[in-house]
Amino acid sequence: MTILDAQQQAARDWFESLRTRICTAFEEIEREAGSEASFDYIAWDREGPGVAPGPLSQGGGGGGVRGVMKGKVFEKVGVNVSTVGGEFSPDFAGQIHGAAEDPGFFATGISLVAHMANPHVPAVHMNTRFLVTTKRWFGGGADLNPPIPYAEDTEAFHAQFRAACQPYGPDVYERYAKWADDYFFIPHRGVARGVGGIFYDHLEVDNEAMFERNFGFTRAVGEAFLAAFPPIVRRRMNTAFTEEDIRQQRIWRGRYAEFNLVHDRGTLFGLRTGGNIDAILMSLPPLAAWE
Amino acid sequence: MTILDAQQQAARDWFESLRTRICTAFEEIEREAGSEASFDYIAWDREGPGVAPGPLSQGGGGGGVRGVMKGKVFEKVGVNVSTVGGEFSPDFAGQIHGAAEDPGFFATGISLVAHMANPHVPAVHMNTRFLVTTKRWFGGGADLNPPIPYAEDTEAFHAQFRAACQPYGPDVYERYAKWADDYFFIPHRGVARGVGGIFYDHLEVDNEAMFERNFGFTRAVGEAFLAAFPPIVRRRMNTAFTEEDIRQQRIWRGRYAEFNLVHDRGTLFGLRTGGNIDAILMSLPPLAAWE
Repeated sequence: MTILDAQQQAARDWFESLRTRICTAFEEIEREAGSEASFDYIAWDREGPGVAPGPLSQGGGGGGVRGVMKGKVFEKVGVNVSTVGGEFSPDFAGQIHGAAEDPGFFATGISLVAHMANPHVPAVHMNTRFLVTTKRWFGGGADLNPPIPYAEDTEAFHAQFRAACQPYGPDVYERYAKWADDYFFIPHRGVARGVGGIFYDHLEVDNEAMFERNFGFTRAVGEAFLAAFPPIVRRRMNTAFTEEDIRQQRIWRGRYAEFNLVHDRGTLFGLRTGGNIDAILMSLPPLAAWE
Repeated sequence: MTILDAQQQAARDWFESLRTRICTAFEEIEREAGSEASFDYIAWDREGPGVAPGPLSQGGGGGGVRGVMKGKVFEKVGVNVSTVGGEFSPDFAGQIHGAAEDPGFFATGISLVAHMANPHVPAVHMNTRFLVTTKRWFGGGADLNPPIPYAEDTEAFHAQFRAACQPYGPDVYERYAKWADDYFFIPHRGVARGVGGIFYDHLEVDNEAMFERNFGFTRAVGEAFLAAFPPIVRRRMNTAFTEEDIRQQRIWRGRYAEFNLVHDRGTLFGLRTGGNIDAILMSLPPLAAWE
């Protein structure tokens, strides 16, 4: 697994180019708001027992690049890309699709969480990934997290993902939107964490045609995110807000932190595979309240 | 298990009287700072599948009282007492001492977390409990969590617990302080959450003499807390602080939230046994930052 195969390289290249396009789009919004904020990029190596530093192509465990911007519109946004590989720990391997017999794995993906300064602008999450064990599959999702929800924003967000899903089957959007509702749920409070989106996993790649199809779907999800979110930000970023709106935003962010620390599988995966702690917990809100 | 036995009643009475003394002591500190803040008390019933509301003595699942004060010195302090009973869920019973064969349980205890307004005043946690399954035991602990540590405070805090442990054996304090260091540790960051204290568990009660001894120890821990913490608060509550101190306090509180949501056994116990969500998560800080 020292040299990426064509599928691994193609997936990785996509995630990195998507990262660049998203970060550029977000920086443009900052310019429109009169801010000079831009992303800082910090490279990190995967760490862990027996993991050599350095890129996979040189026998290391891989790593990633954490991009963070603290702006006027984007109070804190993190966009991570990572490409890691090695072996799962024995107790963790049993929990991962296709890793029970052989703990070797490869994972490449993009992960994004944006916490917005204005409580009228929704926070957002997007993550897509390509995993290789004895199986290969794509997974991902995106969901909108407004402290103050607007039906217009929710509908616009879902509309883009509905359109992205449409070529892949008549029931695809419905199934993945339902999966998002089930997944982005805070069981200990019995409430949804936001207004949903889509969630999908185990889009299996058994042959080249399935790779093309499922990689195509994953790209469509990325494009849908890029089409959906910036217009929502522009629509709300100049809305006046009150101290009480900020209070609600902070309480709502507390729930978001609870979800990520107690339930989120991506967080667990990162913590269990020697991911970079700052990259993994970059999803946590800049300021959260529990009153 | 509908009527508490003498041990259960004695433990419950102690936890409730300790709560009253602690809350009174904390309100006195608020008075000294010129504040009229006082505790609000909210009673709650245990909930869950098949759990009847109401006190154990009337066949219900029990419940508790959540006390919260938001003051000038105590930015947010919660003191919970609860007395609950019933049956553990099958998957949880196997994880609990003495519950693998019989899922019936009784638990009574006090749990306290104080987040302080002034970053020079340490936050603090204290919890003691009496558990009954096919076994009976006491457990508990306390630890000091200063955003800005002072050796004088750390030593004063530990001195009270050292004195409380001393009659119970020459190595008791050392063992329980070590246990606290091991337990109050944030593994994903590789750092201690505070400056320690004591932690103990499974102080078994196989007969009346062992009940007297271990109940006596648990009372001594409560008394040590009451002797230790108010003087530390008084020593630091008027120290001038800066914006940067507040910033450090909020970042530090983020770590505290991480510990409680990812690792804390008491939090897990509460979530798995139908505890009151507001009481369980009362430990979370009023305002926390992840920059």
